[in-house]
Amino acid sequence: MTTDNWSDLLAGLGALRHGLLGGDFLQTWKQSDDDLRAVLTAAEALRALRAAGRSARVFDSGLAISIFRDQSTRTRFSYASAANLLGLGLQELDEKKSQVAHGETVRETANMISFLTEAIGIRDDMFLGEGHAYMAEVAAAVQDGFEQGVLGQRPAVINLQCDLDHPTQSMADLLHLKRTFGSLEALRGKRIAMTWAYSASYGKPLSVPQGIITLMSRFGMEVVLAHPPGYDLVPETLEHAARFAQDSGGSFEVLHEMDAAFEGADIVYPKSWAPLSVMQERTALLRGGDADKLGDLEARCLANNARHKDWECDRDKMARTRDGRALYMHCLPADISGVSCAEGEVAADVFEAARLDTYREASYKPFIIAAMILLTRVTDPAGALRAAKT
Amino acid sequence: MTTDNWSDLLAGLGALRHGLLGGDFLQTWKQSDDDLRAVLTAAEALRALRAAGRSARVFDSGLAISIFRDQSTRTRFSYASAANLLGLGLQELDEKKSQVAHGETVRETANMISFLTEAIGIRDDMFLGEGHAYMAEVAAAVQDGFEQGVLGQRPAVINLQCDLDHPTQSMADLLHLKRTFGSLEALRGKRIAMTWAYSASYGKPLSVPQGIITLMSRFGMEVVLAHPPGYDLVPETLEHAARFAQDSGGSFEVLHEMDAAFEGADIVYPKSWAPLSVMQERTALLRGGDADKLGDLEARCLANNARHKDWECDRDKMARTRDGRALYMHCLPADISGVSCAEGEVAADVFEAARLDTYREASYKPFIIAAMILLTRVTDPAGALRAAKT
Amino acid sequence: MTTDNWSDLLAGLGALRHGLLGGDFLQTWKQSDDDLRAVLTAAEALRALRAAGRSARVFDSGLAISIFRDQSTRTRFSYASAANLLGLGLQELDEKKSQVAHGETVRETANMISFLTEAIGIRDDMFLGEGHAYMAEVAAAVQDGFEQGVLGQRPAVINLQCDLDHPTQSMADLLHLKRTFGSLEALRGKRIAMTWAYSASYGKPLSVPQGIITLMSRFGMEVVLAHPPGYDLVPETLEHAARFAQDSGGSFEVLHEMDAAFEGADIVYPKSWAPLSVMQERTALLRGGDADKLGDLEARCLANNARHKDWECDRDKMARTRDGRALYMHCLPADISGVSCAEGEVAADVFEAARLDTYREASYKPFIIAAMILLTRVTDPAGALRAAKT
Repeated sequence: MTTDNWSDLLAGLGALRHGLLGGDFLQTWKQSDDDLRAVLTAAEALRALRAAGRSARVFDSGLAISIFRDQSTRTRFSYASAANLLGLGLQELDEKKSQVAHGETVRETANMISFLTEAIGIRDDMFLGEGHAYMAEVAAAVQDGFEQGVLGQRPAVINLQCDLDHPTQSMADLLHLKRTFGSLEALRGKRIAMTWAYSASYGKPLSVPQGIITLMSRFGMEVVLAHPPGYDLVPETLEHAARFAQDSGGSFEVLHEMDAAFEGADIVYPKSWAPLSVMQERTALLRGGDADKLGDLEARCLANNARHKDWECDRDKMARTRDGRALYMHCLPADISGVSCAEGEVAADVFEAARLDTYREASYKPFIIAAMILLTRVTDPAGALRAAKT
Repeated sequence: MTTDNWSDLLAGLGALRHGLLGGDFLQTWKQSDDDLRAVLTAAEALRALRAAGRSARVFDSGLAISIFRDQSTRTRFSYASAANLLGLGLQELDEKKSQVAHGETVRETANMISFLTEAIGIRDDMFLGEGHAYMAEVAAAVQDGFEQGVLGQRPAVINLQCDLDHPTQSMADLLHLKRTFGSLEALRGKRIAMTWAYSASYGKPLSVPQGIITLMSRFGMEVVLAHPPGYDLVPETLEHAARFAQDSGGSFEVLHEMDAAFEGADIVYPKSWAPLSVMQERTALLRGGDADKLGDLEARCLANNARHKDWECDRDKMARTRDGRALYMHCLPADISGVSCAEGEVAADVFEAARLDTYREASYKPFIIAAMILLTRVTDPAGALRAAKT
Repeated sequence: MTTDNWSDLLAGLGALRHGLLGGDFLQTWKQSDDDLRAVLTAAEALRALRAAGRSARVFDSGLAISIFRDQSTRTRFSYASAANLLGLGLQELDEKKSQVAHGETVRETANMISFLTEAIGIRDDMFLGEGHAYMAEVAAAVQDGFEQGVLGQRPAVINLQCDLDHPTQSMADLLHLKRTFGSLEALRGKRIAMTWAYSASYGKPLSVPQGIITLMSRFGMEVVLAHPPGYDLVPETLEHAARFAQDSGGSFEVLHEMDAAFEGADIVYPKSWAPLSVMQERTALLRGGDADKLGDLEARCLANNARHKDWECDRDKMARTRDGRALYMHCLPADISGVSCAEGEVAADVFEAARLDTYREASYKPFIIAAMILLTRVTDPAGALRAAKT
């Protein structure tokens, strides 16, 4: 593993101004460019400190709570690692053991679990229109509890994937790009193709493509979103991407052909998702608990997906990218044709060639999460890290 | 959050004599007044240290184990926070994963999990006659293991709610009263009404009202227990309350009208519970696994409850209290009429006015639990806290 | 608890040479005698440090992950204690929450959970031919991830029980023998009877008897394996035992009578297991999910077991041992006749006389596991322990 100079990185971090202190990290588009730069630098500093065997325990005590409303392995362990790295104790709020619901009890529970809590990480990505709303409700509750003197500190709410954004993923992806291409500045003019890809499953969340187009459009990149007609994302996120592209001097376009999207791309991110309309219908049916209609929806959706099996990232498509050598990205696990499924998002040979790179991409997530906790909770993060016991 | 002077509190703690070292915290009535004062002072000291950003990690290593035989959120997180604050690692004994049973295996399991364990927190409140017996069995087993040289240290068993007492709740409540009224001495002569209240659920444990009447009667307060005829508590606890009231110069009386109990009260604690006779019948049926008869019992019990819907803490009842401004207490979650249920323990406007106060009441529990662990396990707690790394 | 001089033990540890650094601990027969001696010495040093109240936190951060594919209490808590003792944060990979499978995903998941991970403890003992293979696959994956620069450190895989070996149990047992008889050298010529014993359950794993015969044969002991005809172990392990016995100047023999095995024994280890042929048939049926045939197999197996109820460790059998006072060992929990079952592995009076000794035997396991993590992960363990903060 290449290691950086932690001392330089801490100096850089100390020089950055950001507005994260005392708040949350819910959506990248709510944060300034300076906030994002500070998160990246803090993540790199934390990574370098760990590699150098230096302590990053800026907390002597305190909990980092996680709430997972869906299965998770890599985000769960990334969050656990981030908490541990900073000196926090991890505690999962298992709703089966704890009976948490929306409404009055969210406000109460958020305070009840937060008396000695520094961070609350939440994954809630199954229902369109709910995940972000729930996180915002928790954040408002702990803000109120803190202001009213109920809580001794104001825990930061960290979005571990909602219905709209997946900022710990997209920021880890951005750090991977920064390190692969050398700097954020080097990303200017680079073409990234965020494309739909075929999968024999349905109901995959929209938050990854939405997170990618809204974040990568901020750094002067040529962002291409491609999907078969009908596989739309939440319109709000397209508006953010278009606006950011304009502001940053990059571009944002939507295509409906995978080949065209790959043409000359520096980076490709082929990944399946469910159409917005399906997610909306699914949310209504899940709320109603209608198993028959859910079965119908799944069958219709899979049949529709099956019309787009050619949306596979194979060798021919990769050959269309810049010098045939675009960086392949994926949030993992990928549906690999002939390996983890019969037909899927990516051909086996393409994935195998990129496999270790996707692992590296994932390796930044613990440090990104730790950086988010650090910057929302610690007044002088560079100073605190320098002073951490080693 | 108001902060105290941790240094003064540590000096006060150092001057107190108590008999908790090497033992357990199972029932407040087994502990001396000095023991209780030491727990309160230690809790305040720990709270002040945390607020001042000073370390309270008196343990370098060691586990704090929790055993929850019933769902729990706030006690679970309070225990986790307490363990973390002192430097202990939390480990839950999940009986579904671990097959623990009563009998021979309790003795063995208690030792097997305790080789590096400092505290064992247990919630076991569902079966009358079992919870406390189980905790006492675990405590005897680790005492024997320690005396026989099997264990390197003697873990403290902390009662996180049993069939008879709920000492972490009642002690947190007492600390809330101490801080609200200024001192333990200021509680003398204050009238506290621990009353039953209506709920459309059945089987709620008796440990909270039992814990309140047995503890508050020790400080010269006028303790009033009120419930509809038949909603009796375990007789032993009434005997303790009567004796403590006599010894402390306070009083203890049982009424069967909510209005009369609220009359002139300084503090009200309206909360539902199941009648002792129902809990006894339920315990027998649960042991026998008789689902039909359990359904019958629940129906009968709910019908009986429904005859007492007027036992709701509403504005009119609050108006009867001293200056109409009694302190409202609840262990949470409360059944709030029109909010968390159709008709319940407390009117929405009364609860909303007291809501933040109930959160503050709950906020002491992590520090109370930490204080219990500290005083049972550490020889010179004030000195150890002063020496903790910061 | 008797305490040792930690300083002498650290000096002894520093003088030992071993080959564990950077690797795993999967099977004792893959490790040199020096490796085993280093683990024992490190375990004793860690135990002495803990008893002296000195820190053994050689890690500032990092996770110790556990993967339990079967219920466990004592190994789960031993692993948790070991991780905590060294300063690592425990994180369980619950496959129900995480969807891990064999194949492509093992390689990926092993890396995804390991970005800040120092140890991965795995229990996988239910399927013959699978447990060790799975652990080896995980170990190869993290080795590759480390070499390819994906992981910042190479986590050690610790076998918490597989289909072939149970090294944390057998090494704790060996430490118990070393301390009971005074030294490893004092074990030379001692007769240990690892015998089958009756139980009214079926499907008990083979890893304990296999672990005992392969390990105890390395120190010049007379190792006797006894079981009814047909209750065979995996042949490979008998070959290891025979070879080790020859190399160490001890002996290894297989008998089919319990009385003969106990004759003159210094140590007896009577414990039930399922015949190899049954485990092979069971593995095939479990893979096929054939519930009817599994029921048939269980019935046949229990009927077969029932023909050997005389394989109970009772007072008469104990009388045959050296001076009638052999050391009784068991990995716990034992099937105790008239206590935990009607008829079982050991008579109640024999077990009660040995009960505390079996607890002591178990008490070494947390330190053995910690020693394995320490020696695989830390370059200068004695120096690191001396420098740990206290």
